[in-house]
Amino acid sequence: MEIKASAPGKIILFGEHVVVYKRPAIALAINKTVDTILRPRDDNKIVIVVPSINLNHVLEITDGKIDYSRKKLSVLDYIYEVFSQFNIQQGFDLIININLPLGAGLGSSAAVTVSTIAVIAKFTNVDLSKKEIAKMAHNIEINVQKVASPIDTALSTYGGFIYLDTDSNVNKITTDINLELIVAYTQKRGNTGLLVDSVKKEYEKYPQILENIFNTVEILTNQAKSALENQDKTLIGDLMNINQGLLDSIGVNTIELSDMIYVARNEGAYGAKLTGSGGGGSIVVYAPKNTKQIFEKLNKFENAFKAEISSNGVEVTVKY
Amino acid sequence: MEIKASAPGKIILFGEHVVVYKRPAIALAINKTVDTILRPRDDNKIVIVVPSINLNHVLEITDGKIDYSRKKLSVLDYIYEVFSQFNIQQGFDLIININLPLGAGLGSSAAVTVSTIAVIAKFTNVDLSKKEIAKMAHNIEINVQKVASPIDTALSTYGGFIYLDTDSNVNKITTDINLELIVAYTQKRGNTGLLVDSVKKEYEKYPQILENIFNTVEILTNQAKSALENQDKTLIGDLMNINQGLLDSIGVNTIELSDMIYVARNEGAYGAKLTGSGGGGSIVVYAPKNTKQIFEKLNKFENAFKAEISSNGVEVTVKY
Repeated sequence: MEIKASAPGKIILFGEHVVVYKRPAIALAINKTVDTILRPRDDNKIVIVVPSINLNHVLEITDGKIDYSRKKLSVLDYIYEVFSQFNIQQGFDLIININLPLGAGLGSSAAVTVSTIAVIAKFTNVDLSKKEIAKMAHNIEINVQKVASPIDTALSTYGGFIYLDTDSNVNKITTDINLELIVAYTQKRGNTGLLVDSVKKEYEKYPQILENIFNTVEILTNQAKSALENQDKTLIGDLMNINQGLLDSIGVNTIELSDMIYVARNEGAYGAKLTGSGGGGSIVVYAPKNTKQIFEKLNKFENAFKAEISSNGVEVTVKY
Repeated sequence: MEIKASAPGKIILFGEHVVVYKRPAIALAINKTVDTILRPRDDNKIVIVVPSINLNHVLEITDGKIDYSRKKLSVLDYIYEVFSQFNIQQGFDLIININLPLGAGLGSSAAVTVSTIAVIAKFTNVDLSKKEIAKMAHNIEINVQKVASPIDTALSTYGGFIYLDTDSNVNKITTDINLELIVAYTQKRGNTGLLVDSVKKEYEKYPQILENIFNTVEILTNQAKSALENQDKTLIGDLMNINQGLLDSIGVNTIELSDMIYVARNEGAYGAKLTGSGGGGSIVVYAPKNTKQIFEKLNKFENAFKAEISSNGVEVTVKY
């Protein structure tokens, strides 16, 4: 038997960082997934394989308990937190294929968590609703990271295109737009916790300035929601570019991100901005006129991929 | 006989572009000048030499009138506008030594204009007050460029460190700060007129967003005035960095400027931002802890120079 769960990554299109200060954000699940495969074993071993980071780790179940003693390895933190939520009595192989750059602000840890929850629940015969999966995954992210936005785990569970309002309610964005995006990412990774902290410190030092900047992002995010609904391509791009400058002003931009952004804009992108926490990581580019050309340019310059909205959240299949 | 006038260039430290929208700005005259030398000739020729741009141009005075027929050459536009304000009956050599990059947002055209007014006034025995020089120079800039801020010509005439308030009144900033700055500039030049226009178009499209951004610049410029008066070095740098992000958000940043800015910041600069209209041109860097190191780094990367506040405006000397 083989249990497989696929869970999508995400892109924040507008409003990263300001969500922490009760401002809205717009984000989408993308058609790049983490695919987690579970194959039961006949022994008491749990063999975890993550090919993309050459991770191969073996645990043993002794007297119904799993011995987690190990070195701290970040992706395992999420996996072990998932295991601890279930009553696991039988060994298995767990192969986690991460088709997303890790730690690049694209929700890879949420997708690992959600897909692992889905396969382990199935394996241990626990019936979880999507709501329960999303909640469990969010709590696990909080346990591991201390702070976590519900956006990543919600999008990885439900899929789709969302507007998070000022009360943190998730609202679905309904649009027929063909939103083909390009994501490019550097090897340099930002540390989300440190970046959230640095914005907090800046906010404490310059509250009046930062409040004004956050308000400006709020206004443009609300205009972006309408622009997406009305398929106003120019407006979407312009607002992405303005949002990028405001992210730069709060100190989360880097030379690597800025270079990729200007390469894309100079090639005719409508909009280009960092996505996620910044300080490294990824940019998202909207170039409806020449997506392929800019994708190829960015992919020479750094790593890049094309992404579209995924309306599918986590999906589980079982092969006998 | 030789008449020489030196007139300083300028740096806008805070508030470029938003001054057009009745927001304040902070700017200073710098110890980099245009030095214009006039030597009377025995004939009716006017020989204009601008060594830094290999310009060598000859006019003739015929029946007391100067024949300006020529190809359009931008620096000559200012010089001819100056000539037309005076009654010139005798030929002369005019050597204009421009010790500033041209068209890089550092007030070179104002310094050419002011220094040329000063020598021609002296040569034609017209006694002009500084107020009259500043006014004439500003009008000449308007004639040539269509739009012109009074900041450049005022600083080139009077020197010093100024806060331009929301009613466009020039207020002197009084501070004991040792404001050693670094200016770095690219070969790529921005076109001030086009950039002012592009911000205007953005403002017309997104008035609510741009108003919020301009208000934010106003708040930070007012805080910067206090920071300069109180010699709060960290605050000065932080506010420069925030201002830079806001300039990026209104679309006047470029990859070349951004690269220089991040090179400076990554080397430990307290603040780094574009200065002037952007779209190319110059950045200004404040790095009180390691000015020399960052100057050298930037000067390898692009052209750079160190600059300080010049309290001297235009100065005229006559050698017999």
